[in-house]
Amino acid sequence: MAFELPKFTPPDFTSEKFLSANEIRVAEVKKDGVSPKGFYLTSHIPTYYHYNNRWILPKHNSQNCVAVLQKEDIIIKELNDLVLGDKVVLGKESDGTNGVIVYREGFDEAVISHAGKSVETSFTNDYDYLFDLMRYEKENGGYIVWVLGPSVVFDFDTRIGLSQLAENGYVQALLAGNAMATHDLEGGYLDTALGQNIYTQVSQPMGHYNHLDLLNEVRRAGSIDKFIADGNVKNGFIKTLNKLDIPFVLAGSIRDDGPLPEVYHNVSKGLNAVKEQTDKATLVICLATMLHSVSTAELASSYRIKEDGAIVPVFMYTVDVTENVVNKVAAARENIAVRTLVTNVQDFVVNVQKALLTPVEDLQVESVEVNVNEYCERTNVKKDEKEKELKIKEEK
Amino acid sequence: MAFELPKFTPPDFTSEKFLSANEIRVAEVKKDGVSPKGFYLTSHIPTYYHYNNRWILPKHNSQNCVAVLQKEDIIIKELNDLVLGDKVVLGKESDGTNGVIVYREGFDEAVISHAGKSVETSFTNDYDYLFDLMRYEKENGGYIVWVLGPSVVFDFDTRIGLSQLAENGYVQALLAGNAMATHDLEGGYLDTALGQNIYTQVSQPMGHYNHLDLLNEVRRAGSIDKFIADGNVKNGFIKTLNKLDIPFVLAGSIRDDGPLPEVYHNVSKGLNAVKEQTDKATLVICLATMLHSVSTAELASSYRIKEDGAIVPVFMYTVDVTENVVNKVAAARENIAVRTLVTNVQDFVVNVQKALLTPVEDLQVESVEVNVNEYCERTNVKKDEKEKELKIKEEK
Amino acid sequence: MAFELPKFTPPDFTSEKFLSANEIRVAEVKKDGVSPKGFYLTSHIPTYYHYNNRWILPKHNSQNCVAVLQKEDIIIKELNDLVLGDKVVLGKESDGTNGVIVYREGFDEAVISHAGKSVETSFTNDYDYLFDLMRYEKENGGYIVWVLGPSVVFDFDTRIGLSQLAENGYVQALLAGNAMATHDLEGGYLDTALGQNIYTQVSQPMGHYNHLDLLNEVRRAGSIDKFIADGNVKNGFIKTLNKLDIPFVLAGSIRDDGPLPEVYHNVSKGLNAVKEQTDKATLVICLATMLHSVSTAELASSYRIKEDGAIVPVFMYTVDVTENVVNKVAAARENIAVRTLVTNVQDFVVNVQKALLTPVEDLQVESVEVNVNEYCERTNVKKDEKEKELKIKEEK
Amino acid sequence: MAFELPKFTPPDFTSEKFLSANEIRVAEVKKDGVSPKGFYLTSHIPTYYHYNNRWILPKHNSQNCVAVLQKEDIIIKELNDLVLGDKVVLGKESDGTNGVIVYREGFDEAVISHAGKSVETSFTNDYDYLFDLMRYEKENGGYIVWVLGPSVVFDFDTRIGLSQLAENGYVQALLAGNAMATHDLEGGYLDTALGQNIYTQVSQPMGHYNHLDLLNEVRRAGSIDKFIADGNVKNGFIKTLNKLDIPFVLAGSIRDDGPLPEVYHNVSKGLNAVKEQTDKATLVICLATMLHSVSTAELASSYRIKEDGAIVPVFMYTVDVTENVVNKVAAARENIAVRTLVTNVQDFVVNVQKALLTPVEDLQVESVEVNVNEYCERTNVKKDEKEKELKIKEEK
Repeated sequence: MAFELPKFTPPDFTSEKFLSANEIRVAEVKKDGVSPKGFYLTSHIPTYYHYNNRWILPKHNSQNCVAVLQKEDIIIKELNDLVLGDKVVLGKESDGTNGVIVYREGFDEAVISHAGKSVETSFTNDYDYLFDLMRYEKENGGYIVWVLGPSVVFDFDTRIGLSQLAENGYVQALLAGNAMATHDLEGGYLDTALGQNIYTQVSQPMGHYNHLDLLNEVRRAGSIDKFIADGNVKNGFIKTLNKLDIPFVLAGSIRDDGPLPEVYHNVSKGLNAVKEQTDKATLVICLATMLHSVSTAELASSYRIKEDGAIVPVFMYTVDVTENVVNKVAAARENIAVRTLVTNVQDFVVNVQKALLTPVEDLQVESVEVNVNEYCERTNVKKDEKEKELKIKEEK
Repeated sequence: MAFELPKFTPPDFTSEKFLSANEIRVAEVKKDGVSPKGFYLTSHIPTYYHYNNRWILPKHNSQNCVAVLQKEDIIIKELNDLVLGDKVVLGKESDGTNGVIVYREGFDEAVISHAGKSVETSFTNDYDYLFDLMRYEKENGGYIVWVLGPSVVFDFDTRIGLSQLAENGYVQALLAGNAMATHDLEGGYLDTALGQNIYTQVSQPMGHYNHLDLLNEVRRAGSIDKFIADGNVKNGFIKTLNKLDIPFVLAGSIRDDGPLPEVYHNVSKGLNAVKEQTDKATLVICLATMLHSVSTAELASSYRIKEDGAIVPVFMYTVDVTENVVNKVAAARENIAVRTLVTNVQDFVVNVQKALLTPVEDLQVESVEVNVNEYCERTNVKKDEKEKELKIKEEK
Repeated sequence: MAFELPKFTPPDFTSEKFLSANEIRVAEVKKDGVSPKGFYLTSHIPTYYHYNNRWILPKHNSQNCVAVLQKEDIIIKELNDLVLGDKVVLGKESDGTNGVIVYREGFDEAVISHAGKSVETSFTNDYDYLFDLMRYEKENGGYIVWVLGPSVVFDFDTRIGLSQLAENGYVQALLAGNAMATHDLEGGYLDTALGQNIYTQVSQPMGHYNHLDLLNEVRRAGSIDKFIADGNVKNGFIKTLNKLDIPFVLAGSIRDDGPLPEVYHNVSKGLNAVKEQTDKATLVICLATMLHSVSTAELASSYRIKEDGAIVPVFMYTVDVTENVVNKVAAARENIAVRTLVTNVQDFVVNVQKALLTPVEDLQVESVEVNVNEYCERTNVKKDEKEKELKIKEEK
Repeated sequence: MAFELPKFTPPDFTSEKFLSANEIRVAEVKKDGVSPKGFYLTSHIPTYYHYNNRWILPKHNSQNCVAVLQKEDIIIKELNDLVLGDKVVLGKESDGTNGVIVYREGFDEAVISHAGKSVETSFTNDYDYLFDLMRYEKENGGYIVWVLGPSVVFDFDTRIGLSQLAENGYVQALLAGNAMATHDLEGGYLDTALGQNIYTQVSQPMGHYNHLDLLNEVRRAGSIDKFIADGNVKNGFIKTLNKLDIPFVLAGSIRDDGPLPEVYHNVSKGLNAVKEQTDKATLVICLATMLHSVSTAELASSYRIKEDGAIVPVFMYTVDVTENVVNKVAAARENIAVRTLVTNVQDFVVNVQKALLTPVEDLQVESVEVNVNEYCERTNVKKDEKEKELKIKEEK
């Protein structure tokens, strides 16, 4: 049985609730970046707007924004992006009174995550689902956006893992900050992260210069692209993205050293560049960064509308060794289509790499075959794919 | 015995090391924001530069920067702030070979913190020292800079505590982000933080609008100052700062909702505004924000030169409920004059408030007086001030 | 208005649910420590048992136990404590079908805690409520049981704080392990904790011997009581308890050095000694120990029946710097009458000490009086007591 | 090049320090469980005792114990295990003055771990070393002791992973508590952990009974062995150990429900049963339990003496998602031959399983072969074994 994305059941527009609803009211923006009072506040739950006898579901939604009527369409905007004359939807109710209906019932239970999932929990199901999802996205032209903190590139195997995933079609965009890209490039330039050899962790002589030396040399080159083209970078995730023409957005913060030339000093512009990527996203994977993950969780639409009109969730996986971080991301996602994993992101990447890039035939499972098969039959929950893997030796 | 700041012993410039040192070499910046190769990388340890037969200690230092010769002085600059023609000090050695001598011996042991201090540790001494330090700074025209994360203003007592500390002269500047100021203003505007009553924590009807409503209304007013002047804010830390004309700098991030009009969208400009405050700092207190704390720890000078020429440390207290955060800050400070406390910042603020604002006479200690006095005598370590407090009833 | 404990509304035994309920069925224990199959599993929610036309609410309840009919009463027992012939209540349903009715409606909402309360939350209300509760218990012959981990006695001020609270009537029993008592006694014997001076944290020469030396000498004395009587202990919480004849139970674990003579090597016997204390408890305060806190949370009754027949909750406060620990305790309490605080327990103890032992008249609040008074009026939630404190200067 | 254990260089007994050393002094135990005053306190660093002109290295060492002379040998004992007449070594110095010499120089640098290694660190090298070590131990008759907390058996894949590792010769003993065994058996008995399906995590109807039902039924059977023999357990780690006759020790705590019949109620007896296993250990792996890990870290010898007289380290890997836990274990090991990993133990187990049980030929590495080979050549640090794996396709 092939993997399928969860279905979204559109509302019955002939039901009483929809039939009796009013049309939206709007008011015009009188000052750039300021909404009229009484605006409607957006959320990640699919929301329908009633206008000119039609029910409009915006192409993308975001949390903590306002809804703007543009011709016959509804666009979701940050306060900061409002411009004079924008027609902002009004009203706090979401039951149709103001022409707005929040529709929670479209996604089934399985899409709504279990909030507050603690570290002492089984993650096998979450991993298996992710593997299925990633294979599905790869085969169906999906757009997987990775949001990465700096610690993912401190590890030797993780840097290889990320590159392999990119080379095999599992990475379509990267969102990160200055530190992540800097450390990865330092690894490719001088084999170190903050002066320590990236495999042995032995500090190199004068290695504390490596971080700033790298930043200065990329700044001298004028761009990461030029720096790589000049042959300075032996390996790493950024080099792989560069080679494969996969876009990355580096948003700035006041903690940045350097920074790299590509880093957005202006955070509002950075946010817009991020949005350009998240608007294409079919799956978002956030590793080891609270700042970028929560920002993306608020911004990225929780669903997308396929070409055939079908509505599907945009899943977000959030992975961090600190429970509090993944819970914050889940909250910013309003628990829709979000899965949380509390672990070291190095293990996460290596796990994903091995699962997606190792041929099924090569798994060695003789010793426990009966045990596992029995178990799978009983629980009756493992996917066909998984069972195939586990039964493979038996069949031989 | 009055409290005194730790002494710094200047080097013996007639010693062999200094006498035999070369003079600094410099090279000119050929492109804005890019250093010549082979630059000298700055650190928080007091560093002397040999030029024209003089040994120059820069007025401020920072970590991960370069040293620029300006006339007869040395200025520490971020890569990003370098401009065409800047004369950058060269050489990696710090033993005089290049005219640069890093001088670790100036501060005594007690100023170098115990790195890796875990949560299961006695903090009494750190608290007592802070109380002495804050009283000293207040009496001697010090400039105490607070760096605050949003969680400090979620608590009823903490908001009062911070305001009282400001009103009593213990706050000279605030460094924070959009969220901290927004939550504090929401509390003063609508008695809530993210829609929950700030004391009872009961969610208010439609309270999830409060956060964006506040942001929108301040944006409409055009500034926090105007918003407060219009009578919208009943209380809170930002209102107190506004009333007392205490400066605050709000640096932006991609996670910001709104943001408030005063928030720096451009992080480089934000950093410069931060630097303006840290250059005046005599004490820095960082609470519950990794981003702003680590940034400030790198940036703020670890010492200052008093008008009489004496060199004294600029202490940094870093407080967070997560051990990893305070360890990162201590590392960014190179363990110089930094003290770490692992606790909830609410308790920290209330502790400081009670210690500094409760008159000594009012402490009630009868029941254990003998016990404690004995102890103090034996350990012989508590400061006179503290002993006075504890002996007070006995003397009556 | 005086502080009152939350009321419990007994069920309406004339309602249909109770009238139509069956009587309990029981089966006899055939082997010590083993229940008949089909036993009823107990929880912390008040539960009524129907027997001989009466509805019995057991004097104490516990989680994960079985209910045993003894004459006309119901006793809650661990599996391990069952003996041949015990009559165990049967049936899994709790709706009356088996004569058992779980009655959730007795306590009002405020008694059911907000589960999953994160560190970034206001704790003022929880503190204020605790202060009221502790004063109430002290004045009304309550029995406050403290459950302490070792880190509370590493801190100079905390040891004093705990002793003062005991001397002022706020401690009726201590539950702990070998490490907590050992470290406290080491402090009183040699001024150190694990060899470091308890105030300065400076390691003492050969200080690593202190821990085992203390253990060995107490073992030589034969008991903590004898060791103290011999004049070896200058101060500390254990000494204070000893002086005041306040009981303490030290339950053993495989991690124990020594251990002290009073430590229960047999954990089942330790548990019974703990139960003797928790059966008297009117309030339980758990600090910085997952093992003992979760154990006590399961064991200690969530309510007690006063002499006048009124049923009141037994509150549990659980305090730890790790969010996960307090959440586990809340879960073991089934969120009934439990309040969680995520902070360093040193600050918690000092906060409680200052709040309960500082006379109200001595609080210094001039500077923000208007501010705060206004705020209290508006929010209208602070207790009379608190308002009195804050208005005191105004009235003068 | 085959993997080799780090060498230990025995001291030069003809050096001045040894030649001039005194012989040990001893005093007799006058009371069971109490040492004479002035005892020598043991540590994990290899320690030589001078007696009858010989230098004795005890067969095993432990931390926080005393050394007892038995005939011509030195035995390390807990205070609690001392019996009347035992001859305890005296003296605090360890430089030979008292006939005791602590010899730090035997192990080379690489065996002394980097203390305070944070979560943001490369773990690839630690993993690779573990894989080599485990293969070596398997091939050379090693004895790998696993110390497990309950969370390892909450996960579907982890339970399979542990069983496979045992079936393939990588597990020789298990040390754990009641909870770990109970949850694993609940999984094998009813497919749940605390009532939730172990794969889907969906709560089962009346699933909260499963935990106590399992405990009660094993108690009825009288032993885990009998319970399994009766066909009640479909799978799981305990069942695998039972089938393979691999010993496990379950040490009790006051938090135990039930407990299982095999659980030691008496912690001192439990500790002795643990010691029986750790005395055979050639490698110890501690996952997700602070209590048992720290206890084992103190107890288990840090070295062993092979039959040929060679001395080799007994490595300990400690893995936990909380940094503080692994740091505590490293401290209890005095940083000798200990490696810390901060991650979710589920990922750890799955990583180890895949690394050790997947044939080298099956790794798929084409896409990045050049990349990786180049990298390995440059860094020149990866083991031959690893390079072989990565080059394998190239050679074809």
